[in-house]
Amino acid sequence: MGDEPLANLLERIHRLCLERAISVGTAESCTGGLVAKLLTDRAGSSGFFRGGVVSYSNDVKAGLLDVPADHIDAHGAVSAQVARDMAIGARVRLSVDVAVAVTGVAGPSGGSRAKPLGLTYVAVADSAGVDVRRFLFDGDRQANRESAARAALELLLAHCEAEPGRPL
Amino acid sequence: MGDEPLANLLERIHRLCLERAISVGTAESCTGGLVAKLLTDRAGSSGFFRGGVVSYSNDVKAGLLDVPADHIDAHGAVSAQVARDMAIGARVRLSVDVAVAVTGVAGPSGGSRAKPLGLTYVAVADSAGVDVRRFLFDGDRQANRESAARAALELLLAHCEAEPGRPL
Repeated sequence: MGDEPLANLLERIHRLCLERAISVGTAESCTGGLVAKLLTDRAGSSGFFRGGVVSYSNDVKAGLLDVPADHIDAHGAVSAQVARDMAIGARVRLSVDVAVAVTGVAGPSGGSRAKPLGLTYVAVADSAGVDVRRFLFDGDRQANRESAARAALELLLAHCEAEPGRPL
Repeated sequence: MGDEPLANLLERIHRLCLERAISVGTAESCTGGLVAKLLTDRAGSSGFFRGGVVSYSNDVKAGLLDVPADHIDAHGAVSAQVARDMAIGARVRLSVDVAVAVTGVAGPSGGSRAKPLGLTYVAVADSAGVDVRRFLFDGDRQANRESAARAALELLLAHCEAEPGRPL
């Protein structure tokens, strides 16, 4: 991930989405609302940010983001498949151009050999499809949540830059 | 509002909800995910926190929280009625025992004589019904968001203390 200060990254997302009229939404598990909080820190964010779902439980992933229960059963809540499903579900349910989703094992418990602490998937759904990335962070709970949020914002920005946007 | 450090307040909510098996969810407008983020800062929060909706746009309030569009039209998104609707909607949609909702004018723009900057409604829906409170904060955007989050957590704690909980 880049070294750009978080405030710069947020400012670039904010400006770009307003300029191109790109609407944005979020679906978060391990970050627990942090990505949405960061996107709305700045005044005027209601001009592009429509909303988000914090899907901590699997029931909320299924009920509000349409993540198929059998995907959770087969792949686990922290998986590329579920990150993808969350992003697609958020894009549809929130009616946005670009939706970013995060699911990971923030720690300190919940890790396993197959799904170690810090394992995080970020997905962005936009008009071109879905892009899913895998990360393995090595911090404590707070650091992993912050790293996951930054990774989500960086992938969101990259996709917003590629979005055609709408005529104003 | 009280002077208790935020970390203490969060620790009390966390411990109480785990002890009594009370499930919690959130519905946030002006705080943009901050309440959910704070509730999930601590490890083990998945034991009681199920999820949340950040309903920044009115479409998301209607679509994911079942806030009647005519209530928004009649009372405005920042109103006791909509705070109540958001809390009830979150309790049902997230399938939780206690849901807390926040809607307010964080600023710096968006204020009016009828709905001044800092005006915030917090509502908690639980097994006893819905409790709605009105606040008028006088800080800047960041301070108003933090004050709104604290007010939401304090009302949430008060209602969790009154909840019977479930047999473990």
